[in-house]
Formats: sequence, C-alpha cells, structure tokens
Amino acid sequence: MDQPAIGDVFGEMIRDAYAVRTGIGPRPLAGGRVPRPVIEIIERDDGLINGAPADHYLAEPAEWQPHDHRALRLVRGAVLDIGAGAGRTALVLQHRGMAVTGLDTSAGAIEVARKRGLRDTVLNTVDAYARSGSRYDTFLLLGNNLGLIEGPERAPVFLAALAELARPGARIIAQGTDPYGTTDPVHVAYHRRNRDRGRLGGQLRLRLRYRMLATEWFDYLNCSVPELAGLLAGTRWRLASVDTEDRPYYLAVMELQP
Amino acid sequence: MDQPAIGDVFGEMIRDAYAVRTGIGPRPLAGGRVPRPVIEIIERDDGLINGAPADHYLAEPAEWQPHDHRALRLVRGAVLDIGAGAGRTALVLQHRGMAVTGLDTSAGAIEVARKRGLRDTVLNTVDAYARSGSRYDTFLLLGNNLGLIEGPERAPVFLAALAELARPGARIIAQGTDPYGTTDPVHVAYHRRNRDRGRLGGQLRLRLRYRMLATEWFDYLNCSVPELAGLLAGTRWRLASVDTEDRPYYLAVMELQP
Repeated sequence: MDQPAIGDVFGEMIRDAYAVRTGIGPRPLAGGRVPRPVIEIIERDDGLINGAPADHYLAEPAEWQPHDHRALRLVRGAVLDIGAGAGRTALVLQHRGMAVTGLDTSAGAIEVARKRGLRDTVLNTVDAYARSGSRYDTFLLLGNNLGLIEGPERAPVFLAALAELARPGARIIAQGTDPYGTTDPVHVAYHRRNRDRGRLGGQLRLRLRYRMLATEWFDYLNCSVPELAGLLAGTRWRLASVDTEDRPYYLAVMELQP
Repeated sequence: MDQPAIGDVFGEMIRDAYAVRTGIGPRPLAGGRVPRPVIEIIERDDGLINGAPADHYLAEPAEWQPHDHRALRLVRGAVLDIGAGAGRTALVLQHRGMAVTGLDTSAGAIEVARKRGLRDTVLNTVDAYARSGSRYDTFLLLGNNLGLIEGPERAPVFLAALAELARPGARIIAQGTDPYGTTDPVHVAYHRRNRDRGRLGGQLRLRLRYRMLATEWFDYLNCSVPELAGLLAGTRWRLASVDTEDRPYYLAVMELQP
C-alpha cells in the first residue's frame, strides 16, 4: 500500500472547507457530482484514528463555543494570533479595529485567511518569527492551541520565543483541554502508556491526514492546569488566571514577569 | 507507530452511531464530556483517505436518497438484504409485511439491527449461506453494495452463490456507482493505475478504520453499466434494466436465467 505524501494537510483541508462553505473554488465531490463533507483525520501513535468535520475552523462567532467569546474579552493591545488558521478569531479582532497579526505554518491556511480579508499575516514558525523584531501585547493560542507547547522539552523553548516577541506586561491567552476527565479505556490506557515512556499522560503523538497528504508525526499537548503550572516554572511566564467553566476545556492567562 | 488491530470496524462504528442517534448505549465523547460525531474512515491503496459521517447507515426513509425508494418498489417475494448493516432498508420491508432476511458479516451491525427490531438476521458470508438451503425471490445490494462483487475474479463466484440461493425468476436489485464521471486528477490517476495493473478502473482496494480497529484490505467495485454487463456474461444473471436517474449512482436489476 502506498504511503501518503508529506504536505500541507491543514491548508488543503481548509481550502476545501472554505469552498464548501462559500462556494468559492472547486468543491470536493463524490462520484464527480455529490458534495462531500470535509473531514479532518487525526491518527495517534497507538493506532487510534478519529475524523472530525473541518467546518468549525471557519465558524462565525454565532457558532463559537462560549469560551472563545470569553477569550476575546481578555485581549488588549497588539495581538499575535498563533495558529491563526483561516483567520476565524483574527478576522473578528481586525473587524473590531484591533491590531492583529495571524501567524500560521500552513501556506494554504494563510491563503484562505487573506482571501477572507485578514490583512496582516505571517507564514512562519514562532521560533523564526521571534527574530523579526516585532512586539506584541497579547498572544492568542485558541482552538486548543495550548497544545502547541508540545511537552516538557519544547514548552520552555516555545515560551522563550513568545517572551522575545513580548512587550512588557504581555499576556498569553491559551485554550487547553484537561484530558484526564475521561473514563474511556482507550484514552486511559494511552495516558498510562505515555507515562510509562516518561511523557506526560496527554502528550499526544499525532499526524493529520487529508486526501493524499499526511503531516509528519508531531507532539501536541493536552495537559491539566497543574501540569501547565509545572511547565511554566522557570520560564518568564506566570499563570495569572484559569477559566474552567467549559470543562474539559479551559482558558489560561499567563503574564510576562517583569 | 502501532498498527491498528484487525476487527469488526463496521460493527463498532454502527454501535456508536446508534448510540448517538438514539441515546441508547455509551456515546463517543471528546475529553470525556463533549459528544463526537461518528465518522467512517476509508483508506485506499494509493494513500487516499476519506472520512464520512456514519449516521446515514441509520437514516429513516424521509432522509434517504431517491433511488433507495425506487429500489424498494422493485422488490417482490422473499427478500435477502445483503450487507444489511443496521437494517436500514430491511426494517422498512419488514414493517410492510414482507419476508425479509438481513445478512451481514459484521456481528456488531447484526446486533444493532436486532435491537432495532429486525427479526430474521444471518451473520454469515453469502458463500457460506448459499449452502443453507434457503431460497429467495429478491436479492438487495443497496447502499452501493453492488461493490461487493469486487471485480472480474470474484463476481462470477459471488453471482453463482446468489444463483444457488435463488428461486426461479429471482432478481438482484443492486445500487452501483459509475466512477468515470469525475475529473478529479486523484481519481483519474487511480483509475489509470488500476488499469495498468490489469484491474478495472474503479476496482477499489480499501480498508475501513474506526478508532483502534482496521479491516483487512479488500476489493470493492465501482463499475460502469457496460462493465457490469461484461461481468454478467457467462453467469446465470441477465441485466434486465438500469435506472440512471441519480447519476453517478444507478440501480441495476438482474434476472435469473431459466
């Protein structure tokens, strides 16, 4: 069986999801005629595979989850939206007249965000962009993008890059997921297996697939609030508040230490 | 990375889709709290992967595609519904007072069909069941199950098994898909690749995945009507009529030769 090619999975998927939602661009069809829903496929290193409709990446505010609205109320100053995707939240901030930059590593996602009207976009990693000299007051990690801190090795490096990009008093507003509320034996066994390997329980090893493409395998962290606090120790960021109203999802606000 | 285990992919998926639709049984949750849609994942041997919501396997008649209704108008006598799944069509025939048997190779699907009230079920392959002595007037291959004829090697064997199960004058009512209407380069290249390997263009090599399970790789045929006619040559079945109103889908009626 042929292995999928490595490529811009997220970009291809977002382009198709955008075509389905707006009618702009070629839409994915079954049998050359019947519209197909755009489904994100996520493989985990224990063999688990899940599909999820991709349309939520393009959701309008009326379709958002409540914590997304609460997150945007915490925003101030110049904003860097990290993993901005198709610009779901950055476009709303721009519309409110805020200075917002959408950063993503997916060329396809940035292309769709620009088509939708997002003016200030950056196609780059946080690490490389940290050397650009740009400075921000707020960093957004929404859509579960707290996961981008990956785990104990990567977190201090990622957080140091944000500190480099930070103005005094800057804050990170991040949405995370506490993975430990589940009783699903598949997930409970996975958390144990991760711990046996010296990893955090919710330190997921994933790859995304869409049609003929796959990403490389990458780490993505679902952590509890105490685990997050542990990862912040020794960095320049301090946990200022946590909103757990929409458990298992939470909003963490981290502030730059003077 | 761990390989998924081989198992009753379809059954696990249908059980979850049934739980989501009815609230009966444990529902799949994200983060232990948020309901997840049940998505069928289909891998093709060229690396293509697609997800599709599984709920259509439980669709009520009001949600069906038009050709499903037209198919059931062609039914007469004792019916064997092949690949009956969760009993979507068999339950409707049973409700109409017809003698209908639902056959499937998935234990989980048969379990759900019985829970939903289907009385006469067979957990078996067509080949093994052909030796049972049972006899039918109508064979249903709906939900694209004409694909079960697989290709030129398997088709005569499969059709001979149905002939063994047939009463005089029996018919097969099969829903197929003509794959050749597409201009999608991924599919066009796949058809060419199959032909280069001595296969029919739409002779798909697939496996299904759901959560921790995968099927073995299997052939599944999307063929044009002329290709179907070719596969019937030399068998006891004759193509009596084809309904192409819902292209690329079609309904083929095949009649047993005296």
